[in-house]
Amino acid sequence: MSEAPIQHGGGISAAAARHGGRPEEWLDLSTGINPCPVRLPPVDAAAWHRLPDQSRLSKARLAAATYYRSGNCLPLPVPGTQAVIQLLPRIVPPGRRAAVVSPTYGEYGRVLRNAGLAVDAIDSLEGVRDEHALVVVVNPNNPDGRLYPSEELLRLWRSLSEAGGTLVVDEAFADIEPSATLAPLAGAGKGLVVFRSFGKFFGLAGLRLGYVLGEEALLADIAEWLGPWAVSGPALTISAGLMTGDCEPIRQAIRERKAALDAVLQAAGLRIAGGTPLFSLVEHEQAQNLQEWLCSRHVLVRAFDYDRRWLRFGLAPDAAADMRLAEALASFGSDP
Amino acid sequence: MSEAPIQHGGGISAAAARHGGRPEEWLDLSTGINPCPVRLPPVDAAAWHRLPDQSRLSKARLAAATYYRSGNCLPLPVPGTQAVIQLLPRIVPPGRRAAVVSPTYGEYGRVLRNAGLAVDAIDSLEGVRDEHALVVVVNPNNPDGRLYPSEELLRLWRSLSEAGGTLVVDEAFADIEPSATLAPLAGAGKGLVVFRSFGKFFGLAGLRLGYVLGEEALLADIAEWLGPWAVSGPALTISAGLMTGDCEPIRQAIRERKAALDAVLQAAGLRIAGGTPLFSLVEHEQAQNLQEWLCSRHVLVRAFDYDRRWLRFGLAPDAAADMRLAEALASFGSDP
Repeated sequence: MSEAPIQHGGGISAAAARHGGRPEEWLDLSTGINPCPVRLPPVDAAAWHRLPDQSRLSKARLAAATYYRSGNCLPLPVPGTQAVIQLLPRIVPPGRRAAVVSPTYGEYGRVLRNAGLAVDAIDSLEGVRDEHALVVVVNPNNPDGRLYPSEELLRLWRSLSEAGGTLVVDEAFADIEPSATLAPLAGAGKGLVVFRSFGKFFGLAGLRLGYVLGEEALLADIAEWLGPWAVSGPALTISAGLMTGDCEPIRQAIRERKAALDAVLQAAGLRIAGGTPLFSLVEHEQAQNLQEWLCSRHVLVRAFDYDRRWLRFGLAPDAAADMRLAEALASFGSDP
Repeated sequence: MSEAPIQHGGGISAAAARHGGRPEEWLDLSTGINPCPVRLPPVDAAAWHRLPDQSRLSKARLAAATYYRSGNCLPLPVPGTQAVIQLLPRIVPPGRRAAVVSPTYGEYGRVLRNAGLAVDAIDSLEGVRDEHALVVVVNPNNPDGRLYPSEELLRLWRSLSEAGGTLVVDEAFADIEPSATLAPLAGAGKGLVVFRSFGKFFGLAGLRLGYVLGEEALLADIAEWLGPWAVSGPALTISAGLMTGDCEPIRQAIRERKAALDAVLQAAGLRIAGGTPLFSLVEHEQAQNLQEWLCSRHVLVRAFDYDRRWLRFGLAPDAAADMRLAEALASFGSDP
């Protein structure tokens, strides 16, 4: 029996079916996606029509190498980070264990356990033991925003790789403040893999695109496991266009939206327990009631079954949405 | 050691690098894709921006059920048939063999063998033996167009499923003349899986989309193996739009292009040994020389390393391209 699917954010249709309203009228704060999608660069007709060929792929990989500052490592495009999480069990040698620094994005543990692997949820890097052949760290972490400095991760990488193990660092939320990124080192040797999300920062989650950085042999294996033409032509072309453009306005817009969100949360008297530039984590004794209340106002935020006091708030798209959230929060109970 | 990647059609950049010319100046006849791409239906901004949610997925599945006439079976969208070929080894029980009716699309044999399975290339359905737990039939077949009547496949399905085996029928080229399709039966019981390609008929191969039809439990397994959000929002939306539209003009355009291609090939004195509405297979004693010659004229056709006399010609997009092909063929050697 495999574990049941995780209830992720983004389930607006389901929420609307339960609480009323048309999905497009809801304010979806349940994901960590840039709510101000960038303008799409032009997509040539051939991107839709033809199988994505080598030159389209190469352009995307070169653009990603520049964007991630990964030097000789040409990041491998994959149809969303999830697609490569599904493949992670393959890099754990038989009989060895995996460790996931937790709590974090639930798909790591679920996919590894469903593949029959022994997985330890460890609460810090100190929990890594010799028997762990795979260690997963989301950095900064989702949902609490915990950030490991790169020196600590490099130390862990060194000790893991000496024992033939692999460190996976998921940097899905590292685009805005990339100070701790290991992307520039990921091609430098065995045993370090970095996952990057394209859709979160650029506000294009529907495109299904991520990049994997690591030593060439592992990237070749992943490419082989995914098979030819794993990523769509439009995704490759849009990504190449945006990654070579000026990303500073996108960063700036996200920072402004994040400041506005935190101002609303604080004005409502909520305690911000963590976060990244793309979301804030609120700790609240009545988190479940608050989530229900927000749903009744057609505002969706993300709850977590492993910590009933937590709610994750994504960024609202504009000042009107900030106001709507502020009003919904202000009217929550008399004893919030 | 895994087998080397197959050289598929669509490698225009590589061909241009070798033979000169800019890729967009080449005439690409190396694939079996409708050369007259349909007009894209509108794609809403949320399709790009948000994670594809349940309602977007359901709309695509319902549209596909209507299009494939699959009744209660809701076809599962996958990011290209290739993505699900990569998963096929998982449905072969340990110790059992697989059979692929051959020669055919090379990825089946390659992926199954790379997974360590024993694979028999059989030359007809009569080659299936009790030890085969998985049988793959491409119908109509690529590249020779051989078509198995549905009764024969149904008989094979019955005997295979009684022994716990699975019949995979790849109907990538069945959209134009769907008389032999098993899609309407694929949900009716265990052991029958039908793969359909979206991009070939609609001329949108860059989109990376296919559908899998079969019993619900198997579709749920495949969905689980692919993980959440396996298919992009734009792909789901475009597919739902096109599959509920009038497809007869598309069929008609393909038939016209196919008739024009065959007229050119015949006028050049070439022997057409097989094909489907989306390509023609030519048998020629000097096939390799002919391919090289066409490359020198910047026309790419598909050769096959397992039969050096075969060349596959895809449809040209218009009468000017027909003419260009005719001229390139007419000038081939004095002793063709």
